[in-house]
Amino acid sequence: MGVIHRRSPDGGWSGVEPRAYDDPSLAGVRKHELIGEPEGASQYRMRYFEVPPGARTARERHPHDHGVMIVAGRARVTLGETTHEVGEGDVVYVAGDELHCFEALGEEPLGFVCVVGPRSPAQ
Amino acid sequence: MGVIHRRSPDGGWSGVEPRAYDDPSLAGVRKHELIGEPEGASQYRMRYFEVPPGARTARERHPHDHGVMIVAGRARVTLGETTHEVGEGDVVYVAGDELHCFEALGEEPLGFVCVVGPRSPAQ
Repeated sequence: MGVIHRRSPDGGWSGVEPRAYDDPSLAGVRKHELIGEPEGASQYRMRYFEVPPGARTARERHPHDHGVMIVAGRARVTLGETTHEVGEGDVVYVAGDELHCFEALGEEPLGFVCVVGPRSPAQ
Repeated sequence: MGVIHRRSPDGGWSGVEPRAYDDPSLAGVRKHELIGEPEGASQYRMRYFEVPPGARTARERHPHDHGVMIVAGRARVTLGETTHEVGEGDVVYVAGDELHCFEALGEEPLGFVCVVGPRSPAQ
């Protein structure tokens, strides 16, 4: 059966508990698991990351890939050895094992959808 | 290696050829395959649908599920026997074999991200 998570005025979604990070280098970053096993999706997960101005996501590499669309704000994206400035509507594919990081640029919070495969023990 | 598709002023993306439909009931609807096998993604596909005011996507059901986020405009969403009005930022999970349809409401074009598993012969 279908599920609807409505965007709420605080920037979250109905029925979704945002997650913060203990790592102080990720202070202020919030992750929202929007679609995945709890909704019935077994092949992919849709998450949303919110990154305050001046903050960034983890600078990391791992075997799973990411499908990203920037929905709000601007970002400096690290992809391997290169960086790129991207904004609303731009789409970024992060390959498996590729170093990546999303830093919020400017005064607006950065927000992006990030799709990934089903959960594995390492995620 | 990572890939970036930049949003272009015409509403499309660099490196992505939009697809229209022959079916006259879907006139004006455009589909953009943003991430999938050509980019290196084997577990999921990220698509974007653009629906002009007054138009709608196919009214259909099929075994594969959909993970949707409304990015622009408003929609009346059919999910099985029910309909729901949704707007920007709202998230809709369409279960496998569930009847579904997205109709653009109001004066703005409807735009939504739609995630699906890897391509099967039926898709």
